[in-house]
Amino acid sequence: MAPVRITSTEEPLNKVNFTAPRPFTTTLKSDLKETFFPDDPFHDFKGKPFPVKAKKALKYFVPIFEWLPRYNRKLFMHDLLAGITIASLAIPQGISYAKLANIPPIIGLYSSFVPPLIYSVFGSSKHIAVGTVAACSLIIAATIEAKVNPVDNPQLYLNLVFTATLVSGVTQLILGVFRLGILVDFLSHSTITGFMGGTATLICLQQLKGILGLKHFTTHTDMVSVIRAIFKNRKEIRWESTVVGVVFLVFLQFTRFVKQKKPKLFWVSAIAPMVVVTSGCVFAYVAHAEKHGIAIVGHLNKGINPSSLKNLDFDPKYISAPIQAGLITAVIALAEGIAIGRSFAIMENEQIDGNKEMIAFGLMNIVGSFTSCYLTTGPFSKTAVNYNAGCKTQMTNVVMSMCMMLTLFFLAPLFGYTPLVALSAIIMSAMLGLIEYDKAYHLYKTDKFDFTICIIAFFGVAFISMDVGLMLSVGLALLRALLYVARPQSSKLGNIPDTYLYRDVEQYPGAIGVPKTLILQLGSPIYFANSGYLRERILRWVRDEKAKKDSQGDDVEYVLLDLGGVTSIDITGVETLTEICRSLEAKQIKVVIVNPRLEVMEKLTLTHFIDKIGRERVFLSIEDAIEGCKFSLSQPKGYGSEG
Amino acid sequence: MAPVRITSTEEPLNKVNFTAPRPFTTTLKSDLKETFFPDDPFHDFKGKPFPVKAKKALKYFVPIFEWLPRYNRKLFMHDLLAGITIASLAIPQGISYAKLANIPPIIGLYSSFVPPLIYSVFGSSKHIAVGTVAACSLIIAATIEAKVNPVDNPQLYLNLVFTATLVSGVTQLILGVFRLGILVDFLSHSTITGFMGGTATLICLQQLKGILGLKHFTTHTDMVSVIRAIFKNRKEIRWESTVVGVVFLVFLQFTRFVKQKKPKLFWVSAIAPMVVVTSGCVFAYVAHAEKHGIAIVGHLNKGINPSSLKNLDFDPKYISAPIQAGLITAVIALAEGIAIGRSFAIMENEQIDGNKEMIAFGLMNIVGSFTSCYLTTGPFSKTAVNYNAGCKTQMTNVVMSMCMMLTLFFLAPLFGYTPLVALSAIIMSAMLGLIEYDKAYHLYKTDKFDFTICIIAFFGVAFISMDVGLMLSVGLALLRALLYVARPQSSKLGNIPDTYLYRDVEQYPGAIGVPKTLILQLGSPIYFANSGYLRERILRWVRDEKAKKDSQGDDVEYVLLDLGGVTSIDITGVETLTEICRSLEAKQIKVVIVNPRLEVMEKLTLTHFIDKIGRERVFLSIEDAIEGCKFSLSQPKGYGSEG
Repeated sequence: MAPVRITSTEEPLNKVNFTAPRPFTTTLKSDLKETFFPDDPFHDFKGKPFPVKAKKALKYFVPIFEWLPRYNRKLFMHDLLAGITIASLAIPQGISYAKLANIPPIIGLYSSFVPPLIYSVFGSSKHIAVGTVAACSLIIAATIEAKVNPVDNPQLYLNLVFTATLVSGVTQLILGVFRLGILVDFLSHSTITGFMGGTATLICLQQLKGILGLKHFTTHTDMVSVIRAIFKNRKEIRWESTVVGVVFLVFLQFTRFVKQKKPKLFWVSAIAPMVVVTSGCVFAYVAHAEKHGIAIVGHLNKGINPSSLKNLDFDPKYISAPIQAGLITAVIALAEGIAIGRSFAIMENEQIDGNKEMIAFGLMNIVGSFTSCYLTTGPFSKTAVNYNAGCKTQMTNVVMSMCMMLTLFFLAPLFGYTPLVALSAIIMSAMLGLIEYDKAYHLYKTDKFDFTICIIAFFGVAFISMDVGLMLSVGLALLRALLYVARPQSSKLGNIPDTYLYRDVEQYPGAIGVPKTLILQLGSPIYFANSGYLRERILRWVRDEKAKKDSQGDDVEYVLLDLGGVTSIDITGVETLTEICRSLEAKQIKVVIVNPRLEVMEKLTLTHFIDKIGRERVFLSIEDAIEGCKFSLSQPKGYGSEG
Repeated sequence: MAPVRITSTEEPLNKVNFTAPRPFTTTLKSDLKETFFPDDPFHDFKGKPFPVKAKKALKYFVPIFEWLPRYNRKLFMHDLLAGITIASLAIPQGISYAKLANIPPIIGLYSSFVPPLIYSVFGSSKHIAVGTVAACSLIIAATIEAKVNPVDNPQLYLNLVFTATLVSGVTQLILGVFRLGILVDFLSHSTITGFMGGTATLICLQQLKGILGLKHFTTHTDMVSVIRAIFKNRKEIRWESTVVGVVFLVFLQFTRFVKQKKPKLFWVSAIAPMVVVTSGCVFAYVAHAEKHGIAIVGHLNKGINPSSLKNLDFDPKYISAPIQAGLITAVIALAEGIAIGRSFAIMENEQIDGNKEMIAFGLMNIVGSFTSCYLTTGPFSKTAVNYNAGCKTQMTNVVMSMCMMLTLFFLAPLFGYTPLVALSAIIMSAMLGLIEYDKAYHLYKTDKFDFTICIIAFFGVAFISMDVGLMLSVGLALLRALLYVARPQSSKLGNIPDTYLYRDVEQYPGAIGVPKTLILQLGSPIYFANSGYLRERILRWVRDEKAKKDSQGDDVEYVLLDLGGVTSIDITGVETLTEICRSLEAKQIKVVIVNPRLEVMEKLTLTHFIDKIGRERVFLSIEDAIEGCKFSLSQPKGYGSEG
């Protein structure tokens, strides 16, 4: 069974594949495919007749055609329950987050009616429950407030919010159509953890306004301004409001605690916000709360979403604000929605296509912006509730939507009595759940750089502003990505005794060196950003090895470069390899190349590097190379001394 | 001699090193060292007594202490000849490039006096000849002209040029001291080729002003404006000037042609500009050229550099222009100077330290800005002449400097007669040599992406502006760097018959698959920017392999991930690996890890990934892993069927 090695001198030692490089169009096509279609979504289509293809395409692009034909009553019973559960969460959250965005509360309810319907048609995740999110609401408010005051000019402000939603939708659609999901990849988990934590902290502090019953506050979103505003207006604090707020908050946190202890009782915390809102309404109505300094939401109109097509405002004077808000929230909403959709899909061993999700999110926000909705996505909390409530298909979003419609037609005015302090308690409680201390601690324990990226996002958001914090963190993550490639690891290999294996001598201290030879393993692509470094590093390896061997009475005659881990190389990289060869040649050291991969081999052939050093200096394995050095390359010296 | 493999079941198959990760401070120290001191400049210092260390440090930081003690008469004879040759080039180039920067021509001569002296003390390259460069002269002019008109306010303009030089010098010094040579690494050869080509084209077109004898012209530097300006002012064209210009240009190009045919005659083209200037002066003096529409340089003062300390202008009204010009030219000058110094050092099998060169360039520009000089570096052309003229040490710069001093004391007024058209011809001829068609063609042939980077730089510079062109090209190169890591190559391995080797089946079509097993080789670091892609790609490999094996009546039971080429991994990467394991586990497929490198192993241990999948699933080599899959992992099935 044991494979036989060919080391006899009769056989050619060197079996490296030197065939001609693939034509440019082939490699370009393959590169483009890897960049934009890594999951090969159309793999099922090959060789099928046109009608089958068309049907498959329809099912691919409009997933409802995939699942609806197989839908049955049993599935519906599950979805009905889950749908009602998330609807009970959608009402208080909708009103709360709309207040966070400084827009009329009814817009929050509208936003849970139309977008879920659109998502149920085009969305591919079974678990996502569509809704508004706190972080994006706050970003929209902060960005548009800088141009238009929502108190002085509420209609213009609202119009710009709709415009921002349209910008978000179009951006998401474009990203999806051009399969630029890669952009979302650049928001790492560490960035998101830090950003969410920072935003949650900020929002919590802001909610002190509602809890304490303050009338005046700041429009800035950094921590210093918010804390200063609380101190400045401390004389406005109303004890009535504070007591009610604290009671609600304690209740909500308690239900959350119950859920953590007994995951089966998740519904307790899921309906808790609804309980808070209804009891708040009853309390406000009975106790005439407004007279005691507890403000309420105020009048809410009956009826479903009016058209907002005419409200979209592209006035060049203001357009920069909705564009900025739209672009940033588009990416954040995608990152949140796709991440949550994907993590539940993995639990169920399914796969969702990020690019298709982007199209679904884009369409839902575009339609939303025409029907008086603002930015929606698949929020963490709502989706988790949906999953726990046993959702089976996208139908849950339809059920939620229908519940919202009934609410809008019949119950909306009742929610006008909701005390603002109840909303603040709901937001605050939700936000406290988003600060993941343990995750940050885990990062600290395992990867200091990831921890730094996370902390920069947290403090950037908390102390400067949300977009600056996000950008700083992404910038740092990119810098790290560039450093990874600019300073790739290289290591010296030694033979592990009694095997043919060559491994890093630092990692396997038992590995022993080969006489007259230095074996180096490179990694990562070799190209302009790291070629200067690699040259210095390799020359340093050689210098150190020479110094060491000199003291042992040995000499370095060969440097073996193991390129097995090098995935690609550019022109500067090839030039650097040539320079290294020349420098070492002058020191009577021969460079030998081991196991170049396909792409690297193509580039080395095209640039005539292989011709320059000679084919006899390229080997398929380290052992071949060592044998080759002994026999063919240094025949005058080594001939006869071995086998 | 042939190493014996351990495959018997008595011995532990698994000899992977699972020892505890190194402490954070150790890895941080090692990372910092690799980032900033890849060449380990102080390796000689270890264990030496203090006085030796101090002496070595002095020699390290001030290279003149290294070479001057060993200097002798024979070396000096070589350096004298080379020094005089480059001085004869420095005079016409100095005057010409100063005109290009719209500053008095005498500044160009001053700039070849002080900076070479400073460089000869601190510089470590034996070949670099210090001088002004065309590209930076043009950038300085374009940037500062946007704030101050050099015709209306020549003194203020000149002061800002000195300030820009100071900014450049300080920037270079800081980059050198903090060992940020890594920044220069990001200017790839392709970017520089395109940028130089674009700048040269632009400058050539601009020189048509001088050759055609035009009086009015544009201050814009893009090609469209320049061509339009020529057409607009075509009535000002003077035939006398044009004839003289063409004659000079043909002469210069002819000497260049001679040099190309007979490299030994390099001195013909080296002294040609001086011939053009002197014959131009004589002609202008004799023929009263100014009366025939051939403008001359005008009065030049005798005497060496006056102090320009008081001229430095930090007025906040203008400061943005010198800062912008200073930063951009600092980096370009470094890139040019270091690249040329390095390439000649490699020819002589020496090594130069980029960071030390930066300090030398920085000091020379700082002192230059105090002594009426503008930006200098090691230009390609002058350094090549220096090398060909047989320079031996930095003494050539001292010789050139002395020649300039004599010129400034005695000959300067004579050069006042130089016709502007002669300068234009000199610049144009130099620039034509910088457009490297063949290099661009080579790029096109070997690497389309590098070619695109080059072409973007060329057209960006030619049609938009020099800094925009440069940034576009660098941006594209960075994007490529990010794509390299965002879409790392992965390949399926097969066994090469009769060996223990496993290689890419695409590259080695003879390699055969292993039953029930899919072997994948990953490469590059695994982290947030590519983990999403890798998940999709691996699942796709598995899907494709399943489809293929199904048709053969086989099944995939194991996925072997060869991590030998993965240099590092971050938290997101580890989470992705976990997700992949979970997804595949659900399909009854076991994931096995092969040969993780030191850094990767540390991260996998810290994050408890190894504990989760079990140590018995980590192997040192692919063969071990295959054996392991057969014996230990699937004992109920495989037990007894083999050996």
